[in-house]
Amino acid sequence: MDRPGEAQHDGRVPHINLPDLPGIVGLLVRYPRTAGPLNGLADALLRGPSSLTPGERETIAAYVSSRNECAFCAETHGAVARHLLHQEGRAEAHAQTDPKMRALLCIAEKVRVDGRSVDPDDIGLAREHGADDKAIHDTVLIAAAFCMFNRYVDGLATLVPDHPEAYARHAKNLAEGGYLAAPEG
Amino acid sequence: MDRPGEAQHDGRVPHINLPDLPGIVGLLVRYPRTAGPLNGLADALLRGPSSLTPGERETIAAYVSSRNECAFCAETHGAVARHLLHQEGRAEAHAQTDPKMRALLCIAEKVRVDGRSVDPDDIGLAREHGADDKAIHDTVLIAAAFCMFNRYVDGLATLVPDHPEAYARHAKNLAEGGYLAAPEG
Repeated sequence: MDRPGEAQHDGRVPHINLPDLPGIVGLLVRYPRTAGPLNGLADALLRGPSSLTPGERETIAAYVSSRNECAFCAETHGAVARHLLHQEGRAEAHAQTDPKMRALLCIAEKVRVDGRSVDPDDIGLAREHGADDKAIHDTVLIAAAFCMFNRYVDGLATLVPDHPEAYARHAKNLAEGGYLAAPEG
Repeated sequence: MDRPGEAQHDGRVPHINLPDLPGIVGLLVRYPRTAGPLNGLADALLRGPSSLTPGERETIAAYVSSRNECAFCAETHGAVARHLLHQEGRAEAHAQTDPKMRALLCIAEKVRVDGRSVDPDDIGLAREHGADDKAIHDTVLIAAAFCMFNRYVDGLATLVPDHPEAYARHAKNLAEGGYLAAPEG
């Protein structure tokens, strides 16, 4: 596994030859054919029309990534969520205090473990607190999609930056520019 | 949860209002904005240029779906894999007898459980048997992507057809037409 030229941000050596860029960024640059739909999915799902705000959707993405213990995605989307919730005039604790968000995060956690474990009562509770079909759909697909992104990033042992400011900069770009601005993903 | 007009293929009632179409198909029709990149990802990953044949890639997709016990995806992609492997002049048992495929399926299974569990020895074994970077990349991303597709399909309790011929027809369309021909996904 001799791969010269790659910075050892955290001691990990990626399983395949990648540009010296952290997390999913190196994968998106090296494999543009799949990067197009991956970025398109993230943008449609996290920034497209929805009854959930972008800050709420990034909160779900960060939560699932954190539960999957994917450091790169959890740090990145946690920072994006804070940035967007602030713009939306909400405290970072929004997800802990808002009953709709609590019900949706419960659904996201069940999807993360096993999609089949979501039951009608989970859905009923989210609806009672104002979630509509689109909010439920987006919650399930965000949770499912981050089960993919987390595994893509960790399954190839991509680099994890050890400088918190790297996440802050990347997160600001994603929060302000979305997922379709090349090449940052 | 009173949702009229939906066929009870297997007794499941989807968690959200969807057209009466099985598995991911109803989701792709009802939510076209995310369907575009989802179909684009499947097509790039399973049909685009790769050092793995389409039959080999569909075998990985079917294997992961089967391990995740997602009946719709496992049946569909199992049938697509058989169709394509036959066209490629390979027996269905290809994955059981080919050392490269066995090594790649071992990686896919680890990704399915937890991306972090893939270790350099797993990668080294696949390389010994002829897998290159692209094969390893595609294996990891296929396994990760089906962790998404399986959760999307099951997390919303989509309909599972009870007629085997439904899979055969759908699989033939996907095997011969790929994933970009609307509206079948």
